[in-house]
Amino acid sequence: MRTVDLNCDLGESFGHFQVGHDEEILKYITSANIACGYHAGDHNVMMKTVNLAKDLNIQIGAHPGLPDLGGFGRREMNISPDEVYNLVVYQIGAMQAVAKVNQVELGHVKPHGALYNMAEKNKELAKAIAKAVKDVDQNLVLFGLSGGFLCEAGSEEGLKTAHEVFADRTYQPDGKLTPRSKENALIHDPEEAVHQVLQMVKEQRVTAVNGEIIPIQADTICVHGDGPNALTFVQHLCKTLKNEGIIIQSVRMK
Amino acid sequence: MRTVDLNCDLGESFGHFQVGHDEEILKYITSANIACGYHAGDHNVMMKTVNLAKDLNIQIGAHPGLPDLGGFGRREMNISPDEVYNLVVYQIGAMQAVAKVNQVELGHVKPHGALYNMAEKNKELAKAIAKAVKDVDQNLVLFGLSGGFLCEAGSEEGLKTAHEVFADRTYQPDGKLTPRSKENALIHDPEEAVHQVLQMVKEQRVTAVNGEIIPIQADTICVHGDGPNALTFVQHLCKTLKNEGIIIQSVRMK
Amino acid sequence: MRTVDLNCDLGESFGHFQVGHDEEILKYITSANIACGYHAGDHNVMMKTVNLAKDLNIQIGAHPGLPDLGGFGRREMNISPDEVYNLVVYQIGAMQAVAKVNQVELGHVKPHGALYNMAEKNKELAKAIAKAVKDVDQNLVLFGLSGGFLCEAGSEEGLKTAHEVFADRTYQPDGKLTPRSKENALIHDPEEAVHQVLQMVKEQRVTAVNGEIIPIQADTICVHGDGPNALTFVQHLCKTLKNEGIIIQSVRMK
Amino acid sequence: MRTVDLNCDLGESFGHFQVGHDEEILKYITSANIACGYHAGDHNVMMKTVNLAKDLNIQIGAHPGLPDLGGFGRREMNISPDEVYNLVVYQIGAMQAVAKVNQVELGHVKPHGALYNMAEKNKELAKAIAKAVKDVDQNLVLFGLSGGFLCEAGSEEGLKTAHEVFADRTYQPDGKLTPRSKENALIHDPEEAVHQVLQMVKEQRVTAVNGEIIPIQADTICVHGDGPNALTFVQHLCKTLKNEGIIIQSVRMK
Repeated sequence: MRTVDLNCDLGESFGHFQVGHDEEILKYITSANIACGYHAGDHNVMMKTVNLAKDLNIQIGAHPGLPDLGGFGRREMNISPDEVYNLVVYQIGAMQAVAKVNQVELGHVKPHGALYNMAEKNKELAKAIAKAVKDVDQNLVLFGLSGGFLCEAGSEEGLKTAHEVFADRTYQPDGKLTPRSKENALIHDPEEAVHQVLQMVKEQRVTAVNGEIIPIQADTICVHGDGPNALTFVQHLCKTLKNEGIIIQSVRMK
Repeated sequence: MRTVDLNCDLGESFGHFQVGHDEEILKYITSANIACGYHAGDHNVMMKTVNLAKDLNIQIGAHPGLPDLGGFGRREMNISPDEVYNLVVYQIGAMQAVAKVNQVELGHVKPHGALYNMAEKNKELAKAIAKAVKDVDQNLVLFGLSGGFLCEAGSEEGLKTAHEVFADRTYQPDGKLTPRSKENALIHDPEEAVHQVLQMVKEQRVTAVNGEIIPIQADTICVHGDGPNALTFVQHLCKTLKNEGIIIQSVRMK
Repeated sequence: MRTVDLNCDLGESFGHFQVGHDEEILKYITSANIACGYHAGDHNVMMKTVNLAKDLNIQIGAHPGLPDLGGFGRREMNISPDEVYNLVVYQIGAMQAVAKVNQVELGHVKPHGALYNMAEKNKELAKAIAKAVKDVDQNLVLFGLSGGFLCEAGSEEGLKTAHEVFADRTYQPDGKLTPRSKENALIHDPEEAVHQVLQMVKEQRVTAVNGEIIPIQADTICVHGDGPNALTFVQHLCKTLKNEGIIIQSVRMK
Repeated sequence: MRTVDLNCDLGESFGHFQVGHDEEILKYITSANIACGYHAGDHNVMMKTVNLAKDLNIQIGAHPGLPDLGGFGRREMNISPDEVYNLVVYQIGAMQAVAKVNQVELGHVKPHGALYNMAEKNKELAKAIAKAVKDVDQNLVLFGLSGGFLCEAGSEEGLKTAHEVFADRTYQPDGKLTPRSKENALIHDPEEAVHQVLQMVKEQRVTAVNGEIIPIQADTICVHGDGPNALTFVQHLCKTLKNEGIIIQSVRMK
């Protein structure tokens, strides 16, 4: 039986500022990546979101980001591996305590935005993140780009990892994502996106932009909770996966 | 044998901004209250300070503050008990993780500045803090004003508490500190300050501003690491305490 | 001919965080209170919002707040008149420059949230704000609670002031707003709210909660751009005012 | 008669966090680059620093930085020219208002740290800064690296510019600074540093690291106010310049 995890970034509101439709999207996913206060989220939002996820029995993950609330953690910053280690430790710890007081356990860590991208381009940063995760709790699963540095560094640290694939992004022949700056980076047609997910989950392969069919490890699919059609797409994706006999379950259960 | 704990606020630098003389003062104290990133401190400073404290075998404590870096956590803010609970959980968690990756255990929690003062004026806030501490780790010792709401709320939650006294502050006949707005709030003469400490530690009593001698529980003495004569005073205080046969040790060891 | 100004808080998004429906509400109001980066807004949002207001020929105002992004400037803080003066100067200056580069002039200043409330309770803070406004530009109009400290302090500084009234808040016999903690603080029925506005604008009187009819100066009406029915209400209010022959125009034109 | 300007970064304290020795260094310099609240400084520090500079009749400049208090504006961030334009406008405006209420005029703008470095590597960013300065006030002098993009973009916008040279940095044959990552980037010997300044000011030439003597425009010298020997060096530099008959005066007076 094929299984796959669905992960989504959540808890990205901040104070008065409301973002996303967390209560809705939580009904469909299996891993919640919850912002930890650096790029978004705050202690109140974290508490509320962990509660929501707990009620629905969704695996709770820390979603640490760069210290850049104004840029939503999406701007790359020149930051050392040592500082990356420190800020990941800090954010996981904060989330762990929020989980603890809600009597749930933290299950995974997925770096956010520019931190994720920087780690996938710079192995030293990926190693700093993996080491931070392991040093805080070696049972945490590290999420990273399928076939990328985060998963590699996680494995080297002895961590369980989850190779992440994207429904709405195209792939290069070398297995990397097509940069967003390119015209064909995004898959706009929902049917095409669902089809790519099925191919990745069932065959662990994907058709690259040049038509070549390449291998890809698809442990978890990144879905979105905001955007006008996000919810509809996720509902459709879940239904299709189930119809194909694929079990949607947390990567930790695997 | 009489024993007493010496605690000091540390790790209050932030990024490029340097505060205090942590390496020096750590040689004399037994409990380090380390800032957690809200009023001061950051992930780098926390990591460095925990390391320093660990090397000297000093008990590490979380020093959570209000989310007010610009005001150094010293400005009272209108904030609900629920939010106070959440922000204390967050900050203890962050510090716990920093301690964990350094293979040391967090020993205590002392609220900072305005958060401490607000809790000593409002039992609901003190209860929120005590509950946060207990929910994160029931073995943590809660520091509060001697005879005040924090220790009371901590005891009610079943926590071990440390009643804190001040060397350089005068006391009212009801056991409260003389407000800083009053002329006679501070003891400027170091000899007088040392004398007050000895009285408090040896007799568990203090002479109030009106001359009345009142009972006071003195588990831990708050000392300062900044200020021109801070270090000299602490050295002198330590020497005097030892000469009087008083053992300076962490409140957790008691 | 009766005239009245309609003012609304705008530009309260921050980075990725979107708040309000600025483009819609701007079509109906005559004074835009634009957040200046302390409680909400940032340099990008300010630039965009000033541009929107300019295109519609709406008077641009600075809406300075407390330095508390996490609390949206709604939490009262213990802050000195000197610091209030400084932070109002800073925020007006930032907004002035944004206006300047868009070739428009800043027209007014309305303090935000807790800063407004604190000034209406503490004349020293109101005076600090009025002095800041005057020192930066004596042609700026200062908005404040009708009959309150801000308008009083503004007049004492020689500033033109705009006495602000609320459509959806009830009034006490002494002319003050019923505190939000009271049950009857808000007017929920839109017709009743419109009726109160007409009474205030046409008669410069209002019926207090005890039935007493009291005098009130109504230079500008505070309307809201967020909330589910905000836009519908403002449309209805504008239509009614026009039907009654009341000219909606900026307080500066008066 | 040769003249030269001495500029220094000032007002870089933040809240409780004290940085530098502003009162001392202000006695020797002619242009004060005052932090504007993004990388350092706050409304209180700005007010105090403008006052200090005014009392000594020192030219006041805005020193805008990246929105990165935790990194002191020294970490390069991936930020668009449009946003750079906006954040420079904002910060100059804030500083202008602080100058206005102190009845002094803002004289110049010098970008801080990573913003300065990014602009000297990317002409688009330099152009965004120059346009921001001009749009806010075309009489402001723009400071930039001697022979670099900021001065070039400033001239293209019709601004007066000040080509900045460094006493303690070595130069490459192409007139660029030796990167700090190189061993020979810094001049540690004070006499050598003073000698380099004299060469630059008197001859408008400098000896590059390879021994080649190259032309350099030296309108203003960057000096430092912090560091253990900073003040002594500046005193020595001033004395030597005066002995050589060089007039130290603001670049705006030239």
